[in-house]
Formats: sequence, C-alpha cells, structure tokens
Amino acid sequence: MSLIVQKYGGSSVADAESIKRVAKRIVETRKAGNEVVVVVSAMGDTTDELVDLAEQVVPVPSGRELDMLLTAGERISMALLAMAIKSLGVDARSYTGSQAGIITDPQHGSARITEVTPGRVREALDEGAIAIVAGFQGFNRGTGDITTLGRGGSDTTAVALAAALGADVCEIYTDVDGVFTADPRLVAAAHKIERITSEEMLELAAAGAKVLYIRAVEYARRHGVVLHVRSSFNNNQGTLVVNPKDGETVEEPIITGVAADLSEAKITVVGVPDIPGKAAQIFTIVATTNANIDMIVQNVSAASTGLTDISFTLPKSDAQVVMTALNAAKDDVGFVSLQHDDQIGKLAVVGAGMRTNAGVSAKLFTALFEAGINIEMISTSEIRISVVTRADTINNAVRVVHTAFGLDSEEVAVVYGGTGR
Amino acid sequence: MSLIVQKYGGSSVADAESIKRVAKRIVETRKAGNEVVVVVSAMGDTTDELVDLAEQVVPVPSGRELDMLLTAGERISMALLAMAIKSLGVDARSYTGSQAGIITDPQHGSARITEVTPGRVREALDEGAIAIVAGFQGFNRGTGDITTLGRGGSDTTAVALAAALGADVCEIYTDVDGVFTADPRLVAAAHKIERITSEEMLELAAAGAKVLYIRAVEYARRHGVVLHVRSSFNNNQGTLVVNPKDGETVEEPIITGVAADLSEAKITVVGVPDIPGKAAQIFTIVATTNANIDMIVQNVSAASTGLTDISFTLPKSDAQVVMTALNAAKDDVGFVSLQHDDQIGKLAVVGAGMRTNAGVSAKLFTALFEAGINIEMISTSEIRISVVTRADTINNAVRVVHTAFGLDSEEVAVVYGGTGR
Repeated sequence: MSLIVQKYGGSSVADAESIKRVAKRIVETRKAGNEVVVVVSAMGDTTDELVDLAEQVVPVPSGRELDMLLTAGERISMALLAMAIKSLGVDARSYTGSQAGIITDPQHGSARITEVTPGRVREALDEGAIAIVAGFQGFNRGTGDITTLGRGGSDTTAVALAAALGADVCEIYTDVDGVFTADPRLVAAAHKIERITSEEMLELAAAGAKVLYIRAVEYARRHGVVLHVRSSFNNNQGTLVVNPKDGETVEEPIITGVAADLSEAKITVVGVPDIPGKAAQIFTIVATTNANIDMIVQNVSAASTGLTDISFTLPKSDAQVVMTALNAAKDDVGFVSLQHDDQIGKLAVVGAGMRTNAGVSAKLFTALFEAGINIEMISTSEIRISVVTRADTINNAVRVVHTAFGLDSEEVAVVYGGTGR
Repeated sequence: MSLIVQKYGGSSVADAESIKRVAKRIVETRKAGNEVVVVVSAMGDTTDELVDLAEQVVPVPSGRELDMLLTAGERISMALLAMAIKSLGVDARSYTGSQAGIITDPQHGSARITEVTPGRVREALDEGAIAIVAGFQGFNRGTGDITTLGRGGSDTTAVALAAALGADVCEIYTDVDGVFTADPRLVAAAHKIERITSEEMLELAAAGAKVLYIRAVEYARRHGVVLHVRSSFNNNQGTLVVNPKDGETVEEPIITGVAADLSEAKITVVGVPDIPGKAAQIFTIVATTNANIDMIVQNVSAASTGLTDISFTLPKSDAQVVMTALNAAKDDVGFVSLQHDDQIGKLAVVGAGMRTNAGVSAKLFTALFEAGINIEMISTSEIRISVVTRADTINNAVRVVHTAFGLDSEEVAVVYGGTGR
C-alpha cells in the first residue's frame, strides 16, 4: 500500500461541482489501495475576497488578525471536500493546519514550517479514513496563534506532510499537464517534461515558471520528497520532480526548459563613486525594504569620472519603496540619480547538463542576436543562464531560444536514464 | 473597573461599515474605563450561505464537517472586528471558541458547554487588550474536534464567558431597544420592559419572544449573570434581566409581557384506547424523532367508546417526521387516525406576579371570549398561561390581552422595587 499526498489548488475546488469532481478522483485513489492525504487551498478567489474585505475595514490589517481571517478560506473548502468524499461512502476527516501538526515560526503572513507532528492525520489513515488538511496555514506554539505560510503555502504544506509521513509521492494538482519546456501559450512546440531534477525545478521556478513555488521545491529537495505535478482534469502522467542521489549518473539534456518573467522592474543607480563599500551600502539600504533583489550588474567604471552605475532587478511591486529608500540616502551614498525601468523581460534557460557542456552561453547569445534581440543584463548560475531584454521582445526570445536548443518537438525530448524511481 | 461582556449578532456586523460602527462603540466602552470582552456572530447571512454551499455538495452533510465549515463564519467577523478596533488605537485580539476555552460535549450542531477555561481571554484583558471571541463555537476535548452550539449559540457563549470571568454585566446587542411587553409590530402600545426576572424571561422566550434564546437565559439564571438586552443602534438603556435572590421581596406586576408564536403545528392522535401506558407509548415514539413537544392535552375519555384523543403542539418543521413515526406504529398503539393542523397560534401571558394573584386565568379567558376568540388548548405553569387559538386570530388576541392586563401605556408600566442592581 502506497501513501500518497495530493494537493489541490483553489481552481480545482472553485465551486460545488469542482469539489464533487475532485472528491471522486480522491476516492478512486483510495479505492486503488492507497492511503491518501489531501491538502487543499481555499476555493477559487476566496482568499482575494477576504483580503478585499479586510481592506474595506482597515487599510493595513494586523498580521495576526489577517491570518485569522484568511484561514477561514481553507476551513470552508476542506470541510466541503470531506463532506463530498463521505457522501461517496469513504470516511474522510478535515483538519486545520494546527490540528494536522503544521508548527511554524510566529511570522504572520509568511511563517516558515519548523516542525510537523501529524499524529491525528496518521491516526485517521490507520483507521482507513482519508485525511483532508487545510493548506497554507500553521500554528505557532509560543504565541498559541494561527499563522499563514505566504504565497504557494499550500504546496509547502503538502510537501511538509509528505516528508513527515514518509509518503511515496506528493502529487501537486494544477490546471496544466505538468512542467513544460516553455510556456505553451508562448511556444506552440513546447512539450511536457517527463522528469526533472529538483535542482533544475528550483531554477525554473526562480526564473518565473509558475507551476510550483520555490519554497515547496526546496523543502522537497531537502527532505527527498518526490513531486508529481499533474492535471486535475485528466489522468495523464505529469512531470516527476526527482532528487538523484549524490554520484548517481543521470544522462541529462543540456537544456531542460526555458522560462520567462515579465513581473520584474530594473532600477539603476547612476553615478556611484567607485570606491570600496558603496555596493554594500546600497544593498544594505535595499535590504531594509525586504524587497527581493534578483539580478545585479555593476558596470565597469569610467576611469575619467571615477563613477560607475549599478543595476538590479526586483518585483515591480517592490520598486516604489526601494526607490524611496534609496532617494532618502542619496547624499549619504553620493550617487547622481536613480532610473526606474518597468519595461523589461527576463529569460532563463535551465539545465543540469550545462555544467559539463561548454558553449551554452554562446548558443543562447547567438540565437538572440540572430533574432535582433538586445541583451541588457546577464546573470549565470551553475545550471542556469538568465538575460534581461526589452519586455516586448520576450515572447519572441523564448521561441527562438526554445528552437535553438532543440526543444521544439517530442522527438528530441528529454531522455533520462539511471535515476530509477 | 467593570468587566463587561458584549455580544453582537450577525445583523450588527453585516458589512464593513457596520463592523467599523460596532468597533467604535466597543472602544468607547473600553475608554470609559471598563474591561471589555466581545462575543460576535458571523456576518449577516454568512451562516445560511455556508449551509447552502454544503447542501450543493451533499444533501445531508456530516455533523463534524458542517461544524468545521460553519465556524469559518465567526472566524471572519471576529478577525475583521479586531482589525477595526486596532485601527482605532486600542489593542484587540480575536480568539476562536477553542482558544477562548469554550469546552463542550461532542454533540455536533447542538453541543452543550461543559466547561469554560478563558485563560487567554483573561490574559488579554490583563494586558489592556479587548478580547474578541467567536460566538456559537466550542471544542470537545475527547475528540479534539470543533463543535457548534446550535441556534442562539452566540448568546450562550457570551453568558458562559460572563459567568466564567465574573463579569458585571453581559450586554446582548440586537436591533430592537430591549424586551417588550408584546411584539411592537403587533401592539402599537407595547413598551419596553425596564427590568424582568430571568424566570419570566425564560417563559417569554419559550413562548416565542425571539429577542433572547432559552439556553442563554437558563445559563444566566443558573450562574447569576445579569443580562442587559439593548440596541446596537443607539445608547438607550435596554432591558435588564435580573436574578432576585431567594426571599428577596420584589414588587412585581401581575403580567410582565405577552408573547405569540405562529411557528407551531398541532397533531391530534384520534381514538386512543383509554388504558394505562398509551400516552407513554405515544410520546416514546415521538421522542425517537427528537421533535420538541410543547403543549399536551388529553381529552376526557368518552365512556361509551373507551377511546380518547391526545393533542400536542410542536414546531411545524418537526411535524412530518412525527406523523410518519406515529403512522408506522398505528396498529401497535391501536389509535384510529392522526390529524395534522398547521393553522394554529399560541399566545402566552407571563408574569411572576400571577403566583400570588388569583383570577389571572379568568381575566385572560374573559378578554379572549369578549373578542370572539375561541380557545383550543390551555397549558399553565407557575408564572405563565398559554392558550392555542386559530392562527388568524392571534394578532387580535395579543392586542386584547395586552389591553386587558393594563400593559397599554408607559404610565401603568412595570414598577419594581427592592431587587437593587
């Protein structure tokens, strides 16, 4: 008997009909002889609607009370899902994050899981029941208060439960068939990836692939949880996210996928004195705003002026507060001016194979050059190369890069070997 | 410094604006130097909407899961109210029933409070904060599950907290000014009762007065909690529900109020053999349906036939299941037929003064007779007389009885003495 954790997002449980459909799928998994734990998000737009309601009452809601409010969302979906399963003749019990033993730090709105004590969930399974657990929410022991895990929190709940229960697989249900070599809305020839390492998945997620959240992938990687990203609308095999053991030989494609991200802006600090400590000073100021900085580029200093420029990218929504913080320190840092640019696009190619393959950068830059696309910033990791271009060129950029790396058809698709399952 | 428990129903917190209005009133009470605990119901029609949602998923939801679902309602209102209070510069913290120590038996949908351990509420007060507690919900220790208290449960939560915390008063906020001598929509001359004993209030509530729920009044009486029923739309003094001590002399009016109830039906079991044990047999069958039986009348047996009729009243919604249960046992009991009548009205006059006042029944029956209203059933307690009439005469009946007992103007209104406060 396998133990399977299934996670269903808000769009999979958006209304009574969807809940009944998902209930049937869960019951089928149970009847196939598996133990089943289900993690569920709030229905459809419930969370957004609750945030709206809070903002009607007060412009900036208290973190503790906002978490109390938002956790009502999963309470509704999980209870309805448990009812629907029971009506199909299979026992089911819903548990809040607290009841399921999701213990977190006290950071309201973005709590981190510190411990998982799923005694009641294990007990429900032992008694033959399906356990339904509220995603996104936890409990802090010190304060006795309810917390939430932030964006993508339900994925993290599912992975954390899978790790604590020693599940065979953690299935993440979504409205697409799995992880694709590129966004299928942009690249018609994009295809589903059968298997991907968690390392690659992390880079793709960080580069803008929406299908999985970084924190969940990190948690899965650290605890050796196998993820299966698949559609809740069909029974197709999706994408397996695996963790090859050290020294395990994996025959990898050079490039696994191409991701694009239009959600970032670029800030350039113009005319920074080229003396030691200035970059540290700037990014210390930026850090006080809690903005998530991604790529950073420092120009070569112009010898004649002793000044240099520093550019970095960050989420568009963080740009204003960072601009304000930097402007306040303008005299202190001694820079000349700030430039803000929200018309950028970021493209990343990811693949563990590029570790041992020279020429990946050259092939990428050539493909973009031949398409007449200008590169404004470059950043690389061991298994990823990211570039910033104009926003309006990004879709074309993804297509030409997807083609250049031979990802355009199923025939040349990824063939792995040796990782086992 | 006084400790005040305030309870606000769903109509007082129906939307963001109402929540802000209520928050202001709570803050005023705090700033006047009181410790304040607030018990809040779900917003407006939230509970009904959640029940509808459950019924879209499954015709008969599981009790455990329905309670899990419904408790989302107060979680939303209490968090929003706490946010609103904090935005006015006063500390506030919301607590679920479980966090506030509302311990109940395991009966989902109609749990009874068995213990109240409000440690976290007391702690919040000690730290100068206002405690906001979810009404209607509790927690069973044996199962570890969330429970709900049934209709009027938020009133009970408020009274139970007031008792456990030793509050000076438990204020029940509603959309009317207090408890009236009769329904002001029926009787223009009805007036607000300044003071009423919990015993009288119990009888009025049992007789159909909607303003307070029986269980909350019972709990208040047993624990000596003073209730203050008042409007959340003005600052008028409402109705005090007090508990005179044994032997305390209270100068009471003969009649405190008149209540009417159109929600009941009458079932008559026709032709029951007039032998010992038949009534017991019938009401044992009725009890299996969990229907709430109110008045019972057994006719004098007709000597010629050896048969008698037994009539009883019960909520209209319970009538069908009771008819079915009795019909199934027709041969066993040996009755001739069943009659069902849902066109009845019930009128009750309540007053502790009737204990020492002969002639109350005579005055009541005379008033109804003079108005041409026929009495079909009669039932009395120490401080109440109830009669059943045709439904279409009930409004007129209330008016003539209100007049007959001299309740029609403020001048002759209730004057109490000696109970103190």
